Amino acid sequence: MGLDLGTTGVKAISFTPEGKVLARAYREYKELYPRPEWVEMDPEKIWSSTKHVIKKVALNTKKDPIQAVGLSVLGEAVTPIGKDGKPLYNSITAVDRRSIEETRWLERNLEKKHLFQITGMPPHPSYSISKILWIKNNRPDIFEKTWKFLLYEDFILHKLGIEPAIDYSLAARTMAFNIHTKDWSSEILQKIGIDKSMFARAYPSGEVVGKINPLIAKELGLSTKTVAVLGGHDQPVSALGAGIIEEGKATDTCGTVECVTCISDKLDLPEARLTYSYATYPYVVEGKFVTIAYFYTAGALLKWYRDNFAFEERKIARKEKKDIYEVIIGQTGDDPSPLLLLPHFMGSGTPWFDPLSKGAIVGLTLGTDRRDIVKAILDSVGYELRVNLEFLEKSGVKVKLLHAIGGGARSEKWLQIKADITGRVFRSLKIPDAACLGAAILAGRGIGVFSSVEEGIQEMVRYKKEFIPRRERQKRYENKYRVYKKLYVSLKEINSQL
Amino acid sequence: MGLDLGTTGVKAISFTPEGKVLARAYREYKELYPRPEWVEMDPEKIWSSTKHVIKKVALNTKKDPIQAVGLSVLGEAVTPIGKDGKPLYNSITAVDRRSIEETRWLERNLEKKHLFQITGMPPHPSYSISKILWIKNNRPDIFEKTWKFLLYEDFILHKLGIEPAIDYSLAARTMAFNIHTKDWSSEILQKIGIDKSMFARAYPSGEVVGKINPLIAKELGLSTKTVAVLGGHDQPVSALGAGIIEEGKATDTCGTVECVTCISDKLDLPEARLTYSYATYPYVVEGKFVTIAYFYTAGALLKWYRDNFAFEERKIARKEKKDIYEVIIGQTGDDPSPLLLLPHFMGSGTPWFDPLSKGAIVGLTLGTDRRDIVKAILDSVGYELRVNLEFLEKSGVKVKLLHAIGGGARSEKWLQIKADITGRVFRSLKIPDAACLGAAILAGRGIGVFSSVEEGIQEMVRYKKEFIPRRERQKRYENKYRVYKKLYVSLKEINSQL
Repeated sequence: MGLDLGTTGVKAISFTPEGKVLARAYREYKELYPRPEWVEMDPEKIWSSTKHVIKKVALNTKKDPIQAVGLSVLGEAVTPIGKDGKPLYNSITAVDRRSIEETRWLERNLEKKHLFQITGMPPHPSYSISKILWIKNNRPDIFEKTWKFLLYEDFILHKLGIEPAIDYSLAARTMAFNIHTKDWSSEILQKIGIDKSMFARAYPSGEVVGKINPLIAKELGLSTKTVAVLGGHDQPVSALGAGIIEEGKATDTCGTVECVTCISDKLDLPEARLTYSYATYPYVVEGKFVTIAYFYTAGALLKWYRDNFAFEERKIARKEKKDIYEVIIGQTGDDPSPLLLLPHFMGSGTPWFDPLSKGAIVGLTLGTDRRDIVKAILDSVGYELRVNLEFLEKSGVKVKLLHAIGGGARSEKWLQIKADITGRVFRSLKIPDAACLGAAILAGRGIGVFSSVEEGIQEMVRYKKEFIPRRERQKRYENKYRVYKKLYVSLKEINSQL
Repeated sequence: MGLDLGTTGVKAISFTPEGKVLARAYREYKELYPRPEWVEMDPEKIWSSTKHVIKKVALNTKKDPIQAVGLSVLGEAVTPIGKDGKPLYNSITAVDRRSIEETRWLERNLEKKHLFQITGMPPHPSYSISKILWIKNNRPDIFEKTWKFLLYEDFILHKLGIEPAIDYSLAARTMAFNIHTKDWSSEILQKIGIDKSMFARAYPSGEVVGKINPLIAKELGLSTKTVAVLGGHDQPVSALGAGIIEEGKATDTCGTVECVTCISDKLDLPEARLTYSYATYPYVVEGKFVTIAYFYTAGALLKWYRDNFAFEERKIARKEKKDIYEVIIGQTGDDPSPLLLLPHFMGSGTPWFDPLSKGAIVGLTLGTDRRDIVKAILDSVGYELRVNLEFLEKSGVKVKLLHAIGGGARSEKWLQIKADITGRVFRSLKIPDAACLGAAILAGRGIGVFSSVEEGIQEMVRYKKEFIPRRERQKRYENKYRVYKKLYVSLKEINSQL
């Protein structure tokens, strides 16, 4: 079984070793916004949701019981656990912005470049260590009572009655982990006065960390022989579940957010990677590394369009019983939109990382219609992807082929647009739930069902369709792209003043 | 009776000398697009539409018959008339772009600055003289047969059986008229080989040019004593009908296009006025002059929004039996839009006159909704107005108060926004048909009903409501405006490449 804990819900899927889905379950939960800029999660709520989905899958696989559980979890979110084993505070999530001061303090006292060289993370308030420092500075009452600061992999293991353990990929997302020695950085921990024992012990992904406590196993409807296996941070686990394991390949996760996870065979941290905010950290396959590029608005833009402008499309979707996004995307033509859209509706992601940047639609005429805007949204995600592929290359990461996952990968039209704009080959996958599949492959490898993760991929991952750049279209997008590249810079000053 | 011939229709209204409307009629006609960039009008169709509205008004004013007809007509549109008195070709209109080469030739052979100093017109392919040169160069067959080139004032008089005559304001719109000597420029005419006799004779506005031919008067249902009086170009005639006659005041015509017509007491042609493309020419009140600023997209933007996005608003309008524009505008709040919109959806008007500029919406976030876009449209017209008021001032024309006319003046909300953004007082009018009213005032002055146009205004024009800038709002718009001013420049290069 692969378990995938995200920011909005938890999913569990059990597979046969041949990659057949046996059972699945999903449960939503909500983030909490106690103050502006603060974003928390309720760890007990997430645990109860997790129990719910495990129970449901266990119930539906009684005949072919689950042997191992692998984990894929959201990064950064950290929870202080008391000496009695209970959460002392809500989890503070990646998008929470309360620890800006603490991040500045870390940058001053450990130097930005040095921090990056140790951890592979370009310093930013999203990482767990700044939240821990915030708790120490602002809630000493909680800090004093804290036994351990757990991320969601170690937290779920703890809840399953297993000694908390964390894999290297997720540990790296704290910005307190030395990715060279693969251990917590004593230099960073000393500087902020935290003992190493306050984190879970780190192991490679695929490590069997123990049997689920028999009482809990019983409660969940699992066999008492079921073991838990370390998975990792959801982006690299998804890459594995998408079958991406070689240098030069990457996954393109198109959900609300767009994220590219690239594989490297060796650890290399050129300064350009810090400049362009590309985090590099251990992959869930030993000896390999990932570098990630991302921006906040891909599916988010289509949802924005849907909620504000898609009245006509909603009617058609209802009438023809189609998915509304299918109708929205389906109405666009094959040509580049005459408009350019800057997709920074939530600030820019990599490589600019400019929180003050905003969205823009330019090139409007009285002849512009809604379809031009939809096409501009689809194109903009392709252009922003290409910007990132170029800057990744400038920082030493080349990508030739991408496996597409996430909701956006359902649109073959969009995948072809991305191929045409970026000049890269894109592939869709037979099983789009790459995070669960990746976690299951690691679980299978852990208990020896597969002799290697490569074998796991071979057995379980199949791609569905390939999207090859079309020469004629490529040229037309190329001209638009040249103009697109100027858009962010041209509007930077204006956006910073709006 | 005031007769107003525009690009999309002709309107006739008869008034009492006290400004009471006795009867009105309107008839639409269509522009013709024989080729891309060519825009023509069928003069016979316009004449038949004009007859239709005169007849209708005459029929409805039998008890209090029309004594004089005054004319307000669209500028530039020119028609070659044969020796038999019949049109030889369709009228070529202001927006027709066929004469770009001829305009360049004029600029080279007479010098741009010199042309401007003679005519008050910043050279551009819209003016009649370039179209006449085009006919000479490209249709010598027509040119040879031409008796006169008539604009719509002289053409209608000709159709009414009166020797063609033209007023100074309309004559100036040919860019072949010397606004200092108030006669056709022999220098310009000689250069292109056209005799002065090919134009109608020029007189001041308010001049009684003759009685309508008795046969035609009979056909139209008019008394055979009815005289025709020179009015002028529609913008200055509208200014008169809006009661604007003093320096420092202007009209703001908000139709599809937005146009500001400013009054000056003396003729002054600083170079800045050429640089910023502000035409200066005789007003319809002797000794005074107008300077006009304009841009192509005011109501045009609301129509664009209506046709593409206003599904919800259409429903509400139908349900509540309201005008759809009232619903669209009514849903916006009082604050400046968080967005900025560059209204150059048809290129920019004055002061940039950049045909390659395009529309843009910037400052978009995932929280942006349709109302923000509508408000941004309303605001953008205010900002673009203010840009023009500032550049008018740089070129020696100060405006403190504006009388609002046109469809956009029906929205009190929009007028208040304009007042707040520009820091000028705006007024709406009791009779919004300013062109007909202005033409009627001139007709009344011509036949001695009024001893002066000032008396005509006093008797016939009433303002309805005054919109005074609100200090608190002004400040908030001021901040946005500072950013708005950078928008065109920031996007200039990108737009020229799109």
